[in-house]
Amino acid sequence: MNTYKIAVIPGDGIGLEVVPAAIEVLDKIAVIDGSFQFEWTYFPWGCEYYLEHGVMMPEDGIETLKKFDQIFLGAVGMPHLVPDHISLWGLLIKIRREMKQSINVRPAKLLAGLESPLKNPQNFNITVVRENSEGEYSDSGGRIHSGADEIAIQNAVFTRKGTERAMRYAFELAKNTKGHVTSATKSNGLTHSMPFWDEVFNSVKKDYPEINSVSNHIDALAAYMVMKPETLDVIVASNLFGDILTDLGGAIMGSIGIAPAANLNIEREYPSMFEPVHGSAPDIAGKGIANPIGQIWTGKMMLDFLGHHEAGTRILNSIEKTLASGIKTGDLGGTSTLADVKDAIIKNL
Amino acid sequence: MNTYKIAVIPGDGIGLEVVPAAIEVLDKIAVIDGSFQFEWTYFPWGCEYYLEHGVMMPEDGIETLKKFDQIFLGAVGMPHLVPDHISLWGLLIKIRREMKQSINVRPAKLLAGLESPLKNPQNFNITVVRENSEGEYSDSGGRIHSGADEIAIQNAVFTRKGTERAMRYAFELAKNTKGHVTSATKSNGLTHSMPFWDEVFNSVKKDYPEINSVSNHIDALAAYMVMKPETLDVIVASNLFGDILTDLGGAIMGSIGIAPAANLNIEREYPSMFEPVHGSAPDIAGKGIANPIGQIWTGKMMLDFLGHHEAGTRILNSIEKTLASGIKTGDLGGTSTLADVKDAIIKNL
Ligand SMILES: CC(C)[C@H](C(=O)O)[C@@H](O)C(=O)O
Ligand SMILES: CC(C)[C@H](C(=O)O)[C@@H](O)C(=O)O
Repeated sequence: MNTYKIAVIPGDGIGLEVVPAAIEVLDKIAVIDGSFQFEWTYFPWGCEYYLEHGVMMPEDGIETLKKFDQIFLGAVGMPHLVPDHISLWGLLIKIRREMKQSINVRPAKLLAGLESPLKNPQNFNITVVRENSEGEYSDSGGRIHSGADEIAIQNAVFTRKGTERAMRYAFELAKNTKGHVTSATKSNGLTHSMPFWDEVFNSVKKDYPEINSVSNHIDALAAYMVMKPETLDVIVASNLFGDILTDLGGAIMGSIGIAPAANLNIEREYPSMFEPVHGSAPDIAGKGIANPIGQIWTGKMMLDFLGHHEAGTRILNSIEKTLASGIKTGDLGGTSTLADVKDAIIKNL
Repeated sequence: MNTYKIAVIPGDGIGLEVVPAAIEVLDKIAVIDGSFQFEWTYFPWGCEYYLEHGVMMPEDGIETLKKFDQIFLGAVGMPHLVPDHISLWGLLIKIRREMKQSINVRPAKLLAGLESPLKNPQNFNITVVRENSEGEYSDSGGRIHSGADEIAIQNAVFTRKGTERAMRYAFELAKNTKGHVTSATKSNGLTHSMPFWDEVFNSVKKDYPEINSVSNHIDALAAYMVMKPETLDVIVASNLFGDILTDLGGAIMGSIGIAPAANLNIEREYPSMFEPVHGSAPDIAGKGIANPIGQIWTGKMMLDFLGHHEAGTRILNSIEKTLASGIKTGDLGGTSTLADVKDAIIKNL
């Protein structure tokens, strides 16, 4: 029996509600499977913690987390109380960076029972591999002059190592999908970073002659996500482009409350972190009406990364069955509560 | 009688077909209106020109263009013959820069008779104001090291002048729309440029207390374009974000072949340039099947900028009437030719 030690950070807002729900589902699938179990350790870090202690997590927080197998995160942010740059860079992005979670993976898949805003959605199943450690999010830059003459500069830094790692991961993934990789570029407008990105892509793809590949400009690719998502398979994108494409992925699925995400340390040197795409949604927090599916599906991604694909598939099937039976929260046009949805998913496992 | 001297650059691919069609429409509306006429001067610049002369336009090209009232451009690019960075930076982006066309305006509007890929599109009417001279497209950056250690850096440069100009233009526009401005930001990830962008936005909006305004992160905003476009009105965005949002605008309208664009020198010191969002589409060029509506609607934007709003509205109404009557090119699911569509639009004027 494998025992996985998981650090749980529910975070803020609806994170406090959807995380326990997802944990119930994960504990249940562990019992059904019988070959593994979870040991959950909760950390009350986030904006409330910040308001009390002046930091989003304790100074030795990163060291503490390193002792765990994986991290299961809810959502971070209470913009009306704590500025985003503090809450995100003090917790979410800090963990991504310090744990070298350099790959972010997010699926976008047409689920039975979900209402896509698209008129005639074909059966799309997209996986976005996002470079998660550098690029546009390099936090490098500054300002000069003041008043009317003020200038702000943001530097995007792309290393061959980081770029190539994301691309290889995408090509490896594509061996088990439809065998197609699309690279999101913008070399016609961003004349230094993206020609480099293209060069690395063209060199990496030579090692995968069996995989089809193409480069599309991010503007056109965003349009394709809406017009013909069924033609896409694995997409590899920079930090910013991946961010935009995965929210679009949530949109075409029918709700951002649905989309899961994994921040992976693919070298397995440090724990990886699993967190849904949605935010803390302060407006609906505490009411028991938040959609727990993003967090539950995120749990499925953690199972996959731990090698329990069958258990993971079972969760996704149960989510689809639940949705198809009409048990949905308000964001999906239903009237069910968080607890209704969670209970149905457990029953359908 | 006003006579407008227009420099015409059909450019490459389908530009050579859709530009003459749009000019026929514009000449017709001039006759109907009776208060103005056009004098068109053609310039055969583009990739063919490059293959012959080694440059996309003659050395004194910019000086030549300055003598005209406006520039009417088709499309630029033949990626299989001329690399994009040469064709675009040698013509399209060069003109945008040297003519100080610092504002790019692109509407996205649900047109009667068009099939949006959205299931239940409400009556959206969005105008994206894009900063067109700097930001992520600053062409500043470089590389260090080589091989496995290579690093590429792209610098995005935002000046207060350029940022504020785009924002003020957006707020002025909103006085004649639904009175709502959305700023596309990403200050939670891009920690130098976008907090600056937000600061400028928050200061400019104080001068427009009658206009509603909000800042949305680009990832969420891209999702809103798909999930609730009818809630959007004027959007102000950086060069890159505007590029992405306007292709999404084309997508939700039903075709990128439809979307028009204006590159404006709002100070009217140099000519502005009017060019559709779509590219040169080499795959369908020369067959007489390209959709001329993007170029014709672009002509309407030129009329608006020249102050002929009634004539402009007449063109847009005629486009809608033509589409509603089922006369459409293949990209819109129809079987009509370019000439059919153009003739119908002229008839419906
Ligand atoms: C061709 C390219 C450089 C251009 C841009 O990104 O500005 C195009 O996508 C556009 O939007 O006009
Ligand atoms: C909150 C924000 C910094 C974050 C990002 O852009 O990475 C979020 O949008 C995401 O995609 O996880």
